[in-house]
Amino acid sequence: MTRITLDITMSLDGFAAGPEPSMEEPLGKRGEELHEWVFGLAAWRSAHGMEGGESGPDADLVAEHIASYGAVVMGRRMFSGGAGPWDTDTNARGWWGDDPPFHVPVFVLTNHQRESLEMQGGTTFHFVTDGIEAALDRAAEAAGDRDVHVAGGADVVQQALNAGRFDELTVHVAPIFLGSGTRLFDGIDGRRVKLEPVPMPASAAVTHLRYRVVR
Amino acid sequence: MTRITLDITMSLDGFAAGPEPSMEEPLGKRGEELHEWVFGLAAWRSAHGMEGGESGPDADLVAEHIASYGAVVMGRRMFSGGAGPWDTDTNARGWWGDDPPFHVPVFVLTNHQRESLEMQGGTTFHFVTDGIEAALDRAAEAAGDRDVHVAGGADVVQQALNAGRFDELTVHVAPIFLGSGTRLFDGIDGRRVKLEPVPMPASAAVTHLRYRVVR
Repeated sequence: MTRITLDITMSLDGFAAGPEPSMEEPLGKRGEELHEWVFGLAAWRSAHGMEGGESGPDADLVAEHIASYGAVVMGRRMFSGGAGPWDTDTNARGWWGDDPPFHVPVFVLTNHQRESLEMQGGTTFHFVTDGIEAALDRAAEAAGDRDVHVAGGADVVQQALNAGRFDELTVHVAPIFLGSGTRLFDGIDGRRVKLEPVPMPASAAVTHLRYRVVR
Repeated sequence: MTRITLDITMSLDGFAAGPEPSMEEPLGKRGEELHEWVFGLAAWRSAHGMEGGESGPDADLVAEHIASYGAVVMGRRMFSGGAGPWDTDTNARGWWGDDPPFHVPVFVLTNHQRESLEMQGGTTFHFVTDGIEAALDRAAEAAGDRDVHVAGGADVVQQALNAGRFDELTVHVAPIFLGSGTRLFDGIDGRRVKLEPVPMPASAAVTHLRYRVVR
């Protein structure tokens, strides 16, 4: 049974990205610090084509997450690394290099219809112009019996939440204050989205929150 | 050694209170839902003059917190329940009844100089007009070898954070989205405030986050 899941990191003050995103800093100023907990983990390094790394409960969670999904949904800015004009190189090929770390079909929400883009390593980007529900439906079809992972950015997460489409949310709270930037959760309809906490292992690097969404 | 600590609940979307606070709903619309995890606990009921209630890890944390502080710092709106004009009853006596649940000296940040107000059960409200640093200093003096508990609201927490005065932060994340209201953390200077996560017991009702502030 395909579930729709979130797995994302936010700062303690609720930001999924810092201010002033650019080609050099697609996650905004200090946004990279959000993900420091993950860069050294074996499971993350392996998905990004690197060897070695740490094991432990954090690495187990990341490995479990990577193994769980059969398709990804993301926004256009996440695809292209925040780049502006559509005709630049990163908009043509995406920000993720020739062998993106997803290794499954990725459905990109955009206003611009274009051909699918087959990359190395199993990642194919498909471009969806008819909204979040259509993107989630197409991803669910492609995922087989695995999950659909909504990767971000914040606007895509908020659209999927307010559409009532999530089955499970995992939020990693990084022990930093960004002060400003893009809020992960803004304008969520709390009367519509009911959550049930799932106890998670403690970590010294980050706090893992997980919720089942109650229908 | 007196430490300055925070112990507060926020929603998953980062709000310490809902929108449109009023005399009837001082925590704003749906703001009471933030604290549902605590109302049934024995330690909380006892501090509020009630008998019975649940035990367990959540209750232990609340009991430990209540036993830890020798003085409290809060904002004027928290003292008076969000009331407007200074001459109303709740502004004169506060929102917390004749026997407030603090049982220690409480230092209220305000623009209006006035006499201290001795309540039943050990709570005395002192009114401080010369800013957050003065309020924290006076509270630290009054706390003896116990902690100073910064109770809220969000603006007071933010002032104390940006003044670099906290030793420890405890944030209980309630499994709800409020959608709008007052953000607990807004405009925090993340370059100044460095955090170190402290592993906490898991709960099925709420997620406890704790951080040591690194000097």
